[in-house]
Amino acid sequence: MATPSAVLVGGTIAIDHVKTPAAEAENLLGGSASYAALAASYFTSPVHLVGIVGQDFPPQHLTMLESHGVTLDGVERSQGDSFAWSGEYHENMNDRTTHSVSVNVLEDWEVKVPAALAASPIVVLANMSPDNQLQLLDQCTAPERFVVADTMDLWINIARGRLHEVLKRIDLLVINEGEARDFMGTSNLILAGRRLLETGPRNVVIKLGEFGAMLFSEQETGSADWALSENTFFRCAAFPLREVADPTGAGDTFLGGLAGHLASTGKTRFGFEDIRRAVVQGSVVASFTCEAFSTRRLETLDTAEIARRLDLFKRMSDW
Amino acid sequence: MATPSAVLVGGTIAIDHVKTPAAEAENLLGGSASYAALAASYFTSPVHLVGIVGQDFPPQHLTMLESHGVTLDGVERSQGDSFAWSGEYHENMNDRTTHSVSVNVLEDWEVKVPAALAASPIVVLANMSPDNQLQLLDQCTAPERFVVADTMDLWINIARGRLHEVLKRIDLLVINEGEARDFMGTSNLILAGRRLLETGPRNVVIKLGEFGAMLFSEQETGSADWALSENTFFRCAAFPLREVADPTGAGDTFLGGLAGHLASTGKTRFGFEDIRRAVVQGSVVASFTCEAFSTRRLETLDTAEIARRLDLFKRMSDW
Repeated sequence: MATPSAVLVGGTIAIDHVKTPAAEAENLLGGSASYAALAASYFTSPVHLVGIVGQDFPPQHLTMLESHGVTLDGVERSQGDSFAWSGEYHENMNDRTTHSVSVNVLEDWEVKVPAALAASPIVVLANMSPDNQLQLLDQCTAPERFVVADTMDLWINIARGRLHEVLKRIDLLVINEGEARDFMGTSNLILAGRRLLETGPRNVVIKLGEFGAMLFSEQETGSADWALSENTFFRCAAFPLREVADPTGAGDTFLGGLAGHLASTGKTRFGFEDIRRAVVQGSVVASFTCEAFSTRRLETLDTAEIARRLDLFKRMSDW
Repeated sequence: MATPSAVLVGGTIAIDHVKTPAAEAENLLGGSASYAALAASYFTSPVHLVGIVGQDFPPQHLTMLESHGVTLDGVERSQGDSFAWSGEYHENMNDRTTHSVSVNVLEDWEVKVPAALAASPIVVLANMSPDNQLQLLDQCTAPERFVVADTMDLWINIARGRLHEVLKRIDLLVINEGEARDFMGTSNLILAGRRLLETGPRNVVIKLGEFGAMLFSEQETGSADWALSENTFFRCAAFPLREVADPTGAGDTFLGGLAGHLASTGKTRFGFEDIRRAVVQGSVVASFTCEAFSTRRLETLDTAEIARRLDLFKRMSDW
């Protein structure tokens, strides 16, 4: 067994209020980095969380993360109010309305990475502003590192220039289907994926929600030749769910599971086959997140449960 | 090698006018049965087409079908005008606007199956009215047969009672994602698939367009227990396309390819594994249809080309 690598996960830590057609809950743990760090904790150790919370942040959420081996030395405690999101899912659980976003402590946040964490070889830039992503990257010191990043429509629209700076410095971009289409100006996802590769990262994952994910890579062909082959393209389904309780954070969980799996190998350079495996692992662990509000299902997992679902998933999509 | 079974394909035969953001073409071969029969012809023989055309029907389309071994004894020639469809695809090639539907010869069509074809063991009820589907079924005489059917939102809305009669008499339903959700009154596709099984057929395929297909089956568990397992659920991706020229008929091609593959085995009873393989074959052959207008790409295929794409498809989705 390889010695697992440390993962540094930077992003938002939020208080979520979520409503679905079936239920409603307040003061939930939310935020891109919370989900990603918790997901990564099932695959590797240590997982270092970098983010900021306010004086109103429920302490039990931090205790829960710590109990999963997520270190909190990189979590800044502010006297302000925590970042908070309130939203509602409609009958079709894919559509949601955001009722409020309270930026609060994120407003003037300057990312600080404690020196002891800066050498982590696997770096996850979970969804946050490109400015914050760049601040975090600037503090990373590992000579050999693999950087995975997520983003969202907001940054594509209001911070595109800074986002392009991020893209030039990362190894793997993870992005939603709709955002990929809009960002690259094409309705064809295959084209969108290949165009995203040209913005910088050598690997791109387009997340398709209930339909899974697509992985694109330049690794074995170079950018000029983008013939689709098993070395440049991988199509992963999503584990089928009979009921979706709350899809919030599924994409962040995917990101963290993927990065955690990469870290578990102890490597810092990854071939297509490594990333393909990581996409499958991320996909499986994300399916659990959808089964309950917030991280409630994710936090009760164990590695045997993930392995069982992975095995079933393989049998249901193999031919 | 098993002796392939005959396939009877009943449905519409149309003249299509199609416009896309890139091009436009008139007097194209269209119709559910045209695509399905042509697709089936790559897998088995004979393929018997049952439908109706008007006096204005371009003879070269029928010649093309015959050149692929599709028999036309079941194609009625009417003095009226052919069924015609005119539509336009938007930038997102998944959305389309129907400009006109001229029912014409379909208006009073009574399906007649020539006696020599009635014993075909594989029966494909391509999309047409449930009344026409039932007329065709009533004339089938094979004591052991396997019936595959497609439908569309129109019939779900205006002929639901008759559609339910069809559902009770078929072995496999193939239906679009949006139609499955609306018909079964749930946004969850897993739930929709399982509910469709309860309407009659022991196998249901939900087509997901660019995202592939889901296969549901009761075969090995009985209806009371619907745990998802590799014996009740299969998730097939779609072959990735760098460019979609015209998706018209892709679903009908899928249906025909699936049925043709089943027929190629020479059997009339199929286990989950058989249908799973057929779904993959249907998915691959449907991808070709999207690469050019009408049947233009589909009609130039050969079995080696299908096998090569199947192999690449497997390598791109295997893990």
